Amino acid sequence: MKGFGSDNHAGVHPELLKSIVQANSEHAPSYGTDDYSDRAIAKFKENFGSQTEVFFVFNGTASNVLSLRFLTERHESVLCSDVSHLNLDECGAPEFFAAKLITVKSTEGKMSLSDLKTSLKRKGDQHYTQSRVVSLTQPTELGTCYSLAEIREICEWAHAEGMRVHIDGARLTNALTTLKCSFKEMTTDLGVDVVSFGGTKNGLMMGEAILVLAPDLVGEAKKKLKYIRKQAAQLPSKTRFIACQFERYLSSDLYLEIANHSCDLAQKLYDGVKSVPQVNITAARQSNAVFVTIPKPWVKHLKEKYFFYVWNEATFECRLMTSWDTTPSEIDGFVNLLREFSETK
Amino acid sequence: MKGFGSDNHAGVHPELLKSIVQANSEHAPSYGTDDYSDRAIAKFKENFGSQTEVFFVFNGTASNVLSLRFLTERHESVLCSDVSHLNLDECGAPEFFAAKLITVKSTEGKMSLSDLKTSLKRKGDQHYTQSRVVSLTQPTELGTCYSLAEIREICEWAHAEGMRVHIDGARLTNALTTLKCSFKEMTTDLGVDVVSFGGTKNGLMMGEAILVLAPDLVGEAKKKLKYIRKQAAQLPSKTRFIACQFERYLSSDLYLEIANHSCDLAQKLYDGVKSVPQVNITAARQSNAVFVTIPKPWVKHLKEKYFFYVWNEATFECRLMTSWDTTPSEIDGFVNLLREFSETK
Amino acid sequence: MKGFGSDNHAGVHPELLKSIVQANSEHAPSYGTDDYSDRAIAKFKENFGSQTEVFFVFNGTASNVLSLRFLTERHESVLCSDVSHLNLDECGAPEFFAAKLITVKSTEGKMSLSDLKTSLKRKGDQHYTQSRVVSLTQPTELGTCYSLAEIREICEWAHAEGMRVHIDGARLTNALTTLKCSFKEMTTDLGVDVVSFGGTKNGLMMGEAILVLAPDLVGEAKKKLKYIRKQAAQLPSKTRFIACQFERYLSSDLYLEIANHSCDLAQKLYDGVKSVPQVNITAARQSNAVFVTIPKPWVKHLKEKYFFYVWNEATFECRLMTSWDTTPSEIDGFVNLLREFSETK
Amino acid sequence: MKGFGSDNHAGVHPELLKSIVQANSEHAPSYGTDDYSDRAIAKFKENFGSQTEVFFVFNGTASNVLSLRFLTERHESVLCSDVSHLNLDECGAPEFFAAKLITVKSTEGKMSLSDLKTSLKRKGDQHYTQSRVVSLTQPTELGTCYSLAEIREICEWAHAEGMRVHIDGARLTNALTTLKCSFKEMTTDLGVDVVSFGGTKNGLMMGEAILVLAPDLVGEAKKKLKYIRKQAAQLPSKTRFIACQFERYLSSDLYLEIANHSCDLAQKLYDGVKSVPQVNITAARQSNAVFVTIPKPWVKHLKEKYFFYVWNEATFECRLMTSWDTTPSEIDGFVNLLREFSETK
Repeated sequence: MKGFGSDNHAGVHPELLKSIVQANSEHAPSYGTDDYSDRAIAKFKENFGSQTEVFFVFNGTASNVLSLRFLTERHESVLCSDVSHLNLDECGAPEFFAAKLITVKSTEGKMSLSDLKTSLKRKGDQHYTQSRVVSLTQPTELGTCYSLAEIREICEWAHAEGMRVHIDGARLTNALTTLKCSFKEMTTDLGVDVVSFGGTKNGLMMGEAILVLAPDLVGEAKKKLKYIRKQAAQLPSKTRFIACQFERYLSSDLYLEIANHSCDLAQKLYDGVKSVPQVNITAARQSNAVFVTIPKPWVKHLKEKYFFYVWNEATFECRLMTSWDTTPSEIDGFVNLLREFSETK
Repeated sequence: MKGFGSDNHAGVHPELLKSIVQANSEHAPSYGTDDYSDRAIAKFKENFGSQTEVFFVFNGTASNVLSLRFLTERHESVLCSDVSHLNLDECGAPEFFAAKLITVKSTEGKMSLSDLKTSLKRKGDQHYTQSRVVSLTQPTELGTCYSLAEIREICEWAHAEGMRVHIDGARLTNALTTLKCSFKEMTTDLGVDVVSFGGTKNGLMMGEAILVLAPDLVGEAKKKLKYIRKQAAQLPSKTRFIACQFERYLSSDLYLEIANHSCDLAQKLYDGVKSVPQVNITAARQSNAVFVTIPKPWVKHLKEKYFFYVWNEATFECRLMTSWDTTPSEIDGFVNLLREFSETK
Repeated sequence: MKGFGSDNHAGVHPELLKSIVQANSEHAPSYGTDDYSDRAIAKFKENFGSQTEVFFVFNGTASNVLSLRFLTERHESVLCSDVSHLNLDECGAPEFFAAKLITVKSTEGKMSLSDLKTSLKRKGDQHYTQSRVVSLTQPTELGTCYSLAEIREICEWAHAEGMRVHIDGARLTNALTTLKCSFKEMTTDLGVDVVSFGGTKNGLMMGEAILVLAPDLVGEAKKKLKYIRKQAAQLPSKTRFIACQFERYLSSDLYLEIANHSCDLAQKLYDGVKSVPQVNITAARQSNAVFVTIPKPWVKHLKEKYFFYVWNEATFECRLMTSWDTTPSEIDGFVNLLREFSETK
Repeated sequence: MKGFGSDNHAGVHPELLKSIVQANSEHAPSYGTDDYSDRAIAKFKENFGSQTEVFFVFNGTASNVLSLRFLTERHESVLCSDVSHLNLDECGAPEFFAAKLITVKSTEGKMSLSDLKTSLKRKGDQHYTQSRVVSLTQPTELGTCYSLAEIREICEWAHAEGMRVHIDGARLTNALTTLKCSFKEMTTDLGVDVVSFGGTKNGLMMGEAILVLAPDLVGEAKKKLKYIRKQAAQLPSKTRFIACQFERYLSSDLYLEIANHSCDLAQKLYDGVKSVPQVNITAARQSNAVFVTIPKPWVKHLKEKYFFYVWNEATFECRLMTSWDTTPSEIDGFVNLLREFSETK
């Protein structure tokens, strides 16, 4: 049953599947030494700057925790939002692979600089983990985006404090539709050090990339990250089948087409649900998700036709998420159902 | 350039690629809750026994180290051969994820029961890791197979000593062609506790499975392994694309077709190279690999036309590996080249 | 300079030092196989119940984190208070050795059952660490004590939820002076599973003990904890010098004498500072610590004569801690100084 | 029962116990910020060079594994002898805290440069741990010593290969009696990077020190090691009681007096047992241990009067170890017993 559950319920975008089929001819060297990898890496450099070091891994958990492992020592810690995927949805993977998380209060998924400052404590005190990384999610788990100014300001502060900035970018492309900028303008140019770049939630079959952006980290990345990745069981053997998708995704603006489609339909969904009096929007719509509270008695009935997640069981805040294959008629159907409930229940 | 480098240089078998294309329609629940996963798991149960618990992961390193993590506590250890992939080719992943390895002398890749017995030491001594698992590779890294009797005898001894038996089965299907038995007869029926079942080297795009076979481990596997997998960054989100391949692979004897093809051509290769006087076979041919010493001056020239690995730089022992897409004419071409060298060099 | 900094600024109680000197004759087997260890363990069994399993370690961090390591799997988590030593003062040791911490709101250092219940989430969800342990500090970091009824209620709830209860008891003996009960009545009888029993802060030179109290954990403790301890670098070789101190400490009510002395003088200090109008008590006095806010301008001058810690730099809440060697005249001196400031500043 | 079991069966040297008693007056700051620590560190600098960074820990396992943790990344590895304490007697602590061990063949406990060279493999290969440290034991587990020339040669090679040299020096002082040099001449001057300096086996109650000797590591040591130590549960709170012993041990040549006594009596023991025809010396006597094979039927009877360890159950090679409190008459008694057996059995 189709619905608004998650963008990882969708399959593979036809163009990306085509790239896989085309890559499936003859032999290719394994473990990242193939031509597809070279070309995909070149595409990343085009988009994030020529200094970028790229490491393909299988999934988002891996790109997040290996980014943190690269950036921290075991006795250091990571500042991240209390609602971050890192903190709530990785089953302790950050603490297993990398370091302790120190959670920071968030509003609509975003940490303020002021709260970050309050959370940075006890420098030099041997009894306390030393915070080394700020990890932002962009767009956040609540579908909102940090502005370019906010990212810059966090980077400047973090660097001044001897810290690095990591972005969990499982849906990074979607943020471009709100911020109207390039990847490079949203990351490298602002001082972001490392990005977990998502593929799976944007139409790939599977595949994520760790992007090391900071020029002064590139040497260390070259020296260490391939071993970190292998030891973490994240070195794909037939890498070409991940690389070919990224090569295609980052070409000819396919990534923007997918992001625009998802976000435009999310906006259509937002406009639709907003028009229903009993439904309340709970966070700004700046990505491919809409957060709303829906009257509890409606939820069960809605879910019989459209799958989606109740985000907060206490308030019946729900997350409605579009994907590359969401259609306008699905949205119309859902909104019409809401309207029907609104009038009859 | 095609050659005899590794079975992971080959692409995806057309039937398996077809299964992926067919799975790419509509939405499917993520994280292993889809119908494809259910059907693939059913196939594994058919082949390994109905008690089998199945956990899909991305690659072979993961299936190996998470199997060991499941079977050991951190203060325990694993007996494995000195030439095992675990010891030599996982960049320390077993020690990172699971436990210390204690290496056992091997002959043609196989550990004898007698050497295993000698390696099991210091039970109850708090200064020494307590050995909890014997890990066999089947077929071994040298392409040989443990016989059914050998596996049974190792299982009986291990269990009597309170240990478990794990098989690294990256190419497990190939062993069937030598042992002329079913998966179940080679594993479950002999007392094997856990198998890392390989897909990628047998024609899949990617995908491996941890199979918990021992009935008395099934409860613990259900309780723990899903968390272990998630924390280890090995829970695929769009699981259907791994599951659909296994469903197809384990159906209608596709797995035997692939294994027979690879192993028959390995035998053809074996017969061909054996006929060349200067080339010496160094291990029995019981899988899809042929190990031979080739005169050093020939190697460079051979590699200009056919890619393969020098296994031992000191002796110029080389590994020649076939795959599902190796053709008889490639073998003829390689053997003819050897014969030419034999006569002219 | 003596003061009210911490009970680990004090030296070794004369009786305990005497026990060390007496133990220093002839040879003794190492690594816990000596007679001193046997006798000290017998004393613990007398005090906590005959089922108790005892493991000596060097320090409090170790007794805490190895207790947790024993009680958890890596993918599980520990509920503990936001101000717990575990969370704030162990430099990430719990996350390194054991598992993720999930912090629970506290009042005067104590977690309420209701807040614990709210913090126990997402059972069976593979994306979330499964909470397995509740860790209480008794007395808490703010010098307060959980009542026997509160401990019982937490144990009952935790057990019903499949969890275990651990007590960080760095100063456990001091709680006896408030609760007027025996060790066993405060722990074993209420269902506490494992205690980190402190020595160093109560007059020992060094030495802590992991006490496994739950009868259904004893078998596992015997099987595993000696290896966990050794691998964690916490197996003392000349164990007799830790054991002899515990033997003496737990004999002839020395432990009560020390605890009563510290807590009586803490009460004297409490009464004294309470009489000064500008000084505000911030937590109940139920152990050997007094928490008060002191006017900021006084602090510097006070610290010239008496060392103590400012607990909260924002509010100038200070921790004043007595020890086995605090004297009444030191308290009089400190209170007189406060009174002087009160009148003149 | 006294005997020749281990130097950690002996108690505390009277001079060191006296230092403890003297340190037990008034309050002292905790966690290494006391004056005793400052003075003990100064003594280490006198003996190993002024650049030396010193970190006190509780035991030898800790000083070894934290040294390695400091020197390696998780994906790196340590070359050490097959009979090293690290490999055989730490219950997997090196693999837990630090990195994979790669064992090197040894003769009389020593690794040759040539075997070390053979063991250094696959640089730059992402599938293989990258060896970063050579760890020597001095004196070795078999009581032999690397010569100054051997140490220098290993250091030069290791440094040229981008590796560091660590010495497990649980009994380092004893090596001075054979090599007739200073600590500095045996370590810093030859290029040794980090030493685990033993106290417990040389007369201390407990206490070891990590010594960072390499000038180019000092900065990193200052930055990291205090956190590594704390997180590893190795930061003593009442540090003064470890520091005061080291201050005394390293003063007025007490360390040489103790080492000379132990080694002279080991020589007396060596001469005595050598004179018994049925007893065979199995390793050079260069420290406080004598390795001999003793006729199996004698062992049981000898052990009724003198405790010692059978080192190798297959050959009845036994380890006889002296300590600071061994007396000539104990040696005479033991040798006389051997002679008696020699004549009558």
